[in-house]
Amino acid sequence: MFFVQLRDEETHMPLPGIDIGEIGHKRGFYGVSNGFLGLKNVRIPRTNMLMRNAKVQPDGTFVKSPASVLTYFTMVMMRCVVTRDNATLLAMAATIATRYSAVRRQSPINPNEREPQIMDHVTQQLKLFPEIANAIAYQLSANKLWSLYHETYVDIERGDFTRLPELHNLSCVMKALCTADCNVGAERLRLACGGHGYLTSANMHLIVSSAAAACSYEGENTVLLLQVGRFLMKSWRAATEGKPLTPTASYLRGPARGETFGKWTGEWANIVAAIEYAAANKVRLAFESMSQRLAQGQTEAEAANGTGIELTQAAELHGRSFVAATFLAYVTGPTVSERSAALNRVLERLLELYLVHTALRHLSDILQCISLSDAELRSLQTRLESVLKKIRPDAVAIVDGFDFHDRCLSSALGSYDGNVYERLFDLAKQSPLNQEPVPKSFHKVLKPFLKSNL
Amino acid sequence: MFFVQLRDEETHMPLPGIDIGEIGHKRGFYGVSNGFLGLKNVRIPRTNMLMRNAKVQPDGTFVKSPASVLTYFTMVMMRCVVTRDNATLLAMAATIATRYSAVRRQSPINPNEREPQIMDHVTQQLKLFPEIANAIAYQLSANKLWSLYHETYVDIERGDFTRLPELHNLSCVMKALCTADCNVGAERLRLACGGHGYLTSANMHLIVSSAAAACSYEGENTVLLLQVGRFLMKSWRAATEGKPLTPTASYLRGPARGETFGKWTGEWANIVAAIEYAAANKVRLAFESMSQRLAQGQTEAEAANGTGIELTQAAELHGRSFVAATFLAYVTGPTVSERSAALNRVLERLLELYLVHTALRHLSDILQCISLSDAELRSLQTRLESVLKKIRPDAVAIVDGFDFHDRCLSSALGSYDGNVYERLFDLAKQSPLNQEPVPKSFHKVLKPFLKSNL
Ligand SMILES: Cc1cc2nc3c(=O)[nH]c(=O)nc-3n(C[C@H](O)[C@H](O)[C@H](O)COP(=O)(O)OP(=O)(O)OC[C@H]3O[C@@H](n4cnc5c(N)ncnc54)[C@H](O)[C@@H]3O)c2cc1C
Ligand SMILES: Cc1cc2nc3c(=O)[nH]c(=O)nc-3n(C[C@H](O)[C@H](O)[C@H](O)COP(=O)(O)OP(=O)(O)OC[C@H]3O[C@@H](n4cnc5c(N)ncnc54)[C@H](O)[C@@H]3O)c2cc1C
Repeated sequence: MFFVQLRDEETHMPLPGIDIGEIGHKRGFYGVSNGFLGLKNVRIPRTNMLMRNAKVQPDGTFVKSPASVLTYFTMVMMRCVVTRDNATLLAMAATIATRYSAVRRQSPINPNEREPQIMDHVTQQLKLFPEIANAIAYQLSANKLWSLYHETYVDIERGDFTRLPELHNLSCVMKALCTADCNVGAERLRLACGGHGYLTSANMHLIVSSAAAACSYEGENTVLLLQVGRFLMKSWRAATEGKPLTPTASYLRGPARGETFGKWTGEWANIVAAIEYAAANKVRLAFESMSQRLAQGQTEAEAANGTGIELTQAAELHGRSFVAATFLAYVTGPTVSERSAALNRVLERLLELYLVHTALRHLSDILQCISLSDAELRSLQTRLESVLKKIRPDAVAIVDGFDFHDRCLSSALGSYDGNVYERLFDLAKQSPLNQEPVPKSFHKVLKPFLKSNL
Repeated sequence: MFFVQLRDEETHMPLPGIDIGEIGHKRGFYGVSNGFLGLKNVRIPRTNMLMRNAKVQPDGTFVKSPASVLTYFTMVMMRCVVTRDNATLLAMAATIATRYSAVRRQSPINPNEREPQIMDHVTQQLKLFPEIANAIAYQLSANKLWSLYHETYVDIERGDFTRLPELHNLSCVMKALCTADCNVGAERLRLACGGHGYLTSANMHLIVSSAAAACSYEGENTVLLLQVGRFLMKSWRAATEGKPLTPTASYLRGPARGETFGKWTGEWANIVAAIEYAAANKVRLAFESMSQRLAQGQTEAEAANGTGIELTQAAELHGRSFVAATFLAYVTGPTVSERSAALNRVLERLLELYLVHTALRHLSDILQCISLSDAELRSLQTRLESVLKKIRPDAVAIVDGFDFHDRCLSSALGSYDGNVYERLFDLAKQSPLNQEPVPKSFHKVLKPFLKSNL
């Protein structure tokens, strides 16, 4: 990595050989200008290189970085940051949509009754509450990722690189999953605001755009998942050969030995184990497909491309297992005693929702390797409906607990005081079209046209 | 329905009691101004009413419409139109992303080889080709819906309203499904263009915004699906009682009599039958939940709200069955002989992709009522990969066949000639920031600051 001087210090003109400009308007990133850069016959002084790891010596000798993955260590950090930021974006969107759903009334449930807050429609609860749970699950996972980052940083300072591959892959999959889920989730929440969700004064569109951008930058999501998929192939081989596994891939050991899942009980830990087992099953299937392609004489790279779909699916489930396990550990782990009983109850409900919802989301993956009776399937649906109902009374308080300042949400629909309609009106009044009762175009165009007796 | 005069013909000032203005900026709908309207003590002359169906007589007597659903007949038409338009939007997005994926090269598959067109990455094919198939499936279904609309229109002119409920429900579910899939699909295609998908010059963001808006207008999607769900509850009751069913719900008859699915063979007709069977199973489950809630003393409306999640799921599968059956009938039906063998081969591959992809998408619904062996599951995955590969060489030709004029796509990434980079550059050069080599802000702000020796 190195710095390049692009412009003259006095005149600011691009230096010879340098072609520079702005790439043009982007959706949602109105204030940001991204540049393009062409370099032709430009020499960069050796001392412009950031030489902490890889180095170029005065005689031109190139000295490799002590661990090749160190070159990407800044990106590892950035992916941890992006994960945390996107969890925050999702929490912001959930706050706006949940508050609005407590103010907006529509469609009486029983005819002749008052229109309910839309949050009382069960389908609306399904749009809001799982995203609240997702936001919290990702926040907790991002925190865990962040501490892993710092631990690994200390290791590296000591010259110990053993945990780098695990951190690298975990940051890749977390970045990909969190941004993808936040993009889809924020859009779902925007839609949950009905027509008002389209108004720029709702500010939902910018949240969605930010989340959407994060799916591409700092490593395009599919490319990241493919990397993680290949890491999982190595891990599966290690598992079948009884070699050591990194902690987050250790759930592969049992399945690689041919152990079966045992019984579905539907308890929290059992659901997490089922997601891990389904992940291991996908890893196994992908490994078998890879092996078959290799046996047919394809190169490693061709086989990986041909198995790309299964590799990304395995990576996704691997990441989901980490999030589910992290959420479970937080809610049931040693910090329980540091929290009030009331807070623990809310967290338990959000965990229940997260796990049941995630099991339903990955039901086909689970059913491919674990059998559930009709009654057990029904019970998942009943649990979903029942936990939505339990969360309902606390929903606004939970998002208030995210503690976003109104200025940060910047939304007519999502302010703390709930004065939605006043704000919508005040902001609409600022529209240029509302500055005079009769638009100028009437006198200039419409009236002459109407009077022209065509 | 009636017209109201809002402004004075001479001065264009709002008439007394009328409060009118614009609601403010909307995401993606930059040129459209939507109004708000308040009416206070405004009397509307009787003759301003559109009195084809419901009427008010000179003495004030209100005469009901001959069929209440006629009041919504304009909306039925609009939903048919929205369905067709959104299928077109999806085809536009697929055209841009597919053409771009043939121009953009990235990531060598085998090291030291030339970077391939990104369309050669299998995961990229999975982003593009199912959306091409979706667009065609929805176009065919929208055409079928449109002819049903015209047949029903003729019926109505003759005073025959029997087919109205079916058309009404079909237009609801098709509008909801097509707009939701187009919103998600267009966004997936936008993401498939990587960073360039964010540029406004790619024009993907406006396609996504249009599709997103259609999820809310002309009947909010969830509200539509809930209506269809309730229609399905009535249909299921009719089916269990051996009463006649509307043609598109006739697949409920067998399952309502307790018939089982029979054997999974994976043939096209068998996949369509499996989706219908899974739909019927969801309808049955929702019906049982409704019945249980009613038995507990809830009102019909409360029970429907409580069962809302299952009702929308049943409606979604019902709509999917219609699309799948329509696509199958078109490709294998009597029009085969009117098409060239080459065209038929392409259509068969797109149908194969649509059905395999849809079966995988609804795999958990299918596995809940039909059992598939490990080998049969594997075969679905193999078929998916194999049909993607077969479509690959024709992909650009297929989207060229949609025949969109460059002006209509208005996209630097998706033009017919494939000159992506020239267009991107030409459009970037128009950015205000690129009009001079050194921005004014350098002289005004940056240079004085740099020289100030702070
Ligand atoms: C771009 C755009 C252009 C438009 N143009 C026009 C126009 O030209 N003329 C016009 O009159 N209107 C127009 N509209 C308004 C549009 O018709 C409404 O936005 C639409 O009908 C949805 O109603 P709503 O906004 O009140 O949403 P709401 O009904 O408030 O929906 C908000 C949430 O509540 C849920 N909800 C509401 N009722 C129920 C229920 N019974 N059961 C379960 N959930 C429920 C919804 O599912 C949604 O998640 C436009 C909207 C948009 C976005
Ligand atoms: C809002 C925004 C801000 C940005 N800011 C910056 C910045 O400040 N500095 C900077 O340097 N960059 C920036 N970027 C650029 C960003 O880093 C790239 O867009 C990103 O790395 C993706 O690369 P790409 O655009 O070339 O997409 P591509 O790599 O061309 O991706 C296009 C498609 O090809 C697929 N694909 C590519 N390679 C493979 C593969 N090996 N296997 C399978 N599929 C593949 C992708 O999955 C995707 O579907 C920004 C981007 C955005 C959107």
